Amino acid sequence: MKRSQLLSQTSKQDPADAQSVSHRLLLRGDFIDQLASGVYSLLPLGWRVYQKVEDIIRDEMNAIGGQELILPSLQPQSIWEESGRWGEMDPPLFKVKDRHDKQLALGPTHEEVITSIVRTRISSYKQLPLALYQIQNKFRNEVRATGGLLRTREFVMKDLYSFHDSKESLQKFYDKVKKAYQNIFKRMGLKIVWVQAASGTIGGKISHEAMVLSSEGEDEVLLCPKCGFAANVEKQDSSKCPECGEKLEVKNAIEAGHVFQLGIKYSEKMKATYTDKNGEQHPLIMGCYGLGLQRTMATIIEEWHDDKGMIWPLSVAPYQIALIGIGDDKKIKTTTSDIYKELLQKGYEVVWYDQEEKSVGEKFADADLLGFPYRLVISNKTLQKDSVEVKIRKTDQTKLVKKEQLISYIENEFSKF
Amino acid sequence: MKRSQLLSQTSKQDPADAQSVSHRLLLRGDFIDQLASGVYSLLPLGWRVYQKVEDIIRDEMNAIGGQELILPSLQPQSIWEESGRWGEMDPPLFKVKDRHDKQLALGPTHEEVITSIVRTRISSYKQLPLALYQIQNKFRNEVRATGGLLRTREFVMKDLYSFHDSKESLQKFYDKVKKAYQNIFKRMGLKIVWVQAASGTIGGKISHEAMVLSSEGEDEVLLCPKCGFAANVEKQDSSKCPECGEKLEVKNAIEAGHVFQLGIKYSEKMKATYTDKNGEQHPLIMGCYGLGLQRTMATIIEEWHDDKGMIWPLSVAPYQIALIGIGDDKKIKTTTSDIYKELLQKGYEVVWYDQEEKSVGEKFADADLLGFPYRLVISNKTLQKDSVEVKIRKTDQTKLVKKEQLISYIENEFSKF
Repeated sequence: MKRSQLLSQTSKQDPADAQSVSHRLLLRGDFIDQLASGVYSLLPLGWRVYQKVEDIIRDEMNAIGGQELILPSLQPQSIWEESGRWGEMDPPLFKVKDRHDKQLALGPTHEEVITSIVRTRISSYKQLPLALYQIQNKFRNEVRATGGLLRTREFVMKDLYSFHDSKESLQKFYDKVKKAYQNIFKRMGLKIVWVQAASGTIGGKISHEAMVLSSEGEDEVLLCPKCGFAANVEKQDSSKCPECGEKLEVKNAIEAGHVFQLGIKYSEKMKATYTDKNGEQHPLIMGCYGLGLQRTMATIIEEWHDDKGMIWPLSVAPYQIALIGIGDDKKIKTTTSDIYKELLQKGYEVVWYDQEEKSVGEKFADADLLGFPYRLVISNKTLQKDSVEVKIRKTDQTKLVKKEQLISYIENEFSKF
Repeated sequence: MKRSQLLSQTSKQDPADAQSVSHRLLLRGDFIDQLASGVYSLLPLGWRVYQKVEDIIRDEMNAIGGQELILPSLQPQSIWEESGRWGEMDPPLFKVKDRHDKQLALGPTHEEVITSIVRTRISSYKQLPLALYQIQNKFRNEVRATGGLLRTREFVMKDLYSFHDSKESLQKFYDKVKKAYQNIFKRMGLKIVWVQAASGTIGGKISHEAMVLSSEGEDEVLLCPKCGFAANVEKQDSSKCPECGEKLEVKNAIEAGHVFQLGIKYSEKMKATYTDKNGEQHPLIMGCYGLGLQRTMATIIEEWHDDKGMIWPLSVAPYQIALIGIGDDKKIKTTTSDIYKELLQKGYEVVWYDQEEKSVGEKFADADLLGFPYRLVISNKTLQKDSVEVKIRKTDQTKLVKKEQLISYIENEFSKF
């Protein structure tokens, strides 16, 4: 992609109303555009990151046997009445009337819908366990949306639902999902801590949040330095560890995921049952597992940035390589153009800073702000040594690489990830 | 995927309320689940088809230089007032109030949002032409939703928007998009006819619909057998060809896509301008280009089915291969299992009919209904000849292929597409 064609109007100024680092950098880098309070478009750069985040999540959900589907946003009042959550959700449901004066909710979560699908399709224990997931838009009628992509009124969530014939089967799958989440976040450069959590209006007795410790986090978690106990303050308010009595440490954190052992909360009310080996009917035992995609993007930035801008891990970078030629010499232009074409042809994602009206300093600052993992510079100085300068954004290290070794150097660098 | 694990409860009976072939087969094959009138979930098989349709569309949009992004569903009243469409849309907007009593529309289309994004980012003719697209959920407050996925209240659309500094530039890109649509539909096994169309509440003077001729189509088109003139009856009501005077033929058709030369309808009202070479400001000249994904899936079925079920083109089949072992011999089971593993390992998409409680006839009928392009059968009869029986769903032809040549046979077959 030529930088001159890429829709991204970056800014040197910090926006006035940005409350968090990620919000500030997403706006400065033109990754997002705010349409209303808590409602954002993902512009081309933001969308590219989003897609990579989505791919990683999908990959790990498929690896644990999840079957993907997609459920509607428009949900009839009747199924919310069945579960008893029509008037109970917090934040309250967005409600809309159709032309027959019927009320519909905009789905903030999909326990009701998935249960309504499964109850007509699962009859026997032989069909269990079953895991279904979607990566789908959610609507939450928040009073206050803050922090850019950290808390919004419209966002995409991966929500996985599992169905079991025993608590043991649920526990086993629950642990499997937690491991999958660890893989997901690790692949995106994030380290998570699992903490005991309150279940809220989703329900169930046991639930855990995947927390990324961060000073920007809205959540507070209590950690035991001795035995490893960890809980959200919402769940655990005493100041002593309930496991070993040690004094608990308080840390700010961003909730990156939330998993729930729902038990039979929905299946009992909505009559979703299976027949066991002895021909007896029981309500399905359920789990559900959420992960917000835009929030994950923001969390990566909270973790990976410096005073120059974002520092994208290679796995989720909007583009992998920034390419900058310095000077008007024909040789520099030809070499840069040749390298651009060769990288594209090899399948690399490159932004070529081709704008004639911009200074070298502006280009460097722009590439740093946007956080591309590698920067290649071609100049008279590098060409005198038949080389290209490679800068690694994360370490700020630069290195001269011989032109003819450039592709194999990059192949080798990328293979480390 | 083992058939026993796949969430798809197929039915031999035709559903009572299905009005079209695609609706009937999508329900019988358990590709979709109806949650409310005109509101459907895509179940795992439906979702797999959807994803392939999406990939093909994305591929062709990127090929003509489209930059992908994603715009919100929740849209503030203010931008719809700016364009004058708040009270004008047909069907009327779904409207929802938030907790600050502000009204939001659920986006049925995104001309307002994209114009609001572009107006703060495009200033010069040097940035033009620009093409932005998304593949995103739409909401239409229809009174009557009919025909399964053909007309729904919630569906995904690919909507592309282009911005130009001259009518010629718009016309050139418009033609490019029409060609891209032809590629898209051809890759999915569909043949389209472009017809002149009415612009409705989207606007602009010139618009064309991509029509698939089909007896199930809600639309009627007028075709000139002599000069090739073609128009929707909504656009052209005379019974004689306006180009050559010949009598026009009337055909039913399904609208598969709709493209519009919007001109300055939105840019003028919303003050989205560019500066030309002489420093003068003009409103951006715009085009927009829609394509409904679920409707495309249904249209493929309308075109590709027989009395046994669906006949998916390989490019969009939910799985490519159905694998069936007949008989309880250990050798048959081992061979089938080995072939399953080898196919998976080579990256093929296979459904293995592993259910012990189902008859061979039931398995054959199920595979035919679901429309997998290839069916492999292993039995004593085939193994005596060291072979596998291959049936091509589309032609109904069967053929014995030597076991050791199976993979290269399939590779060769698939390479034709």
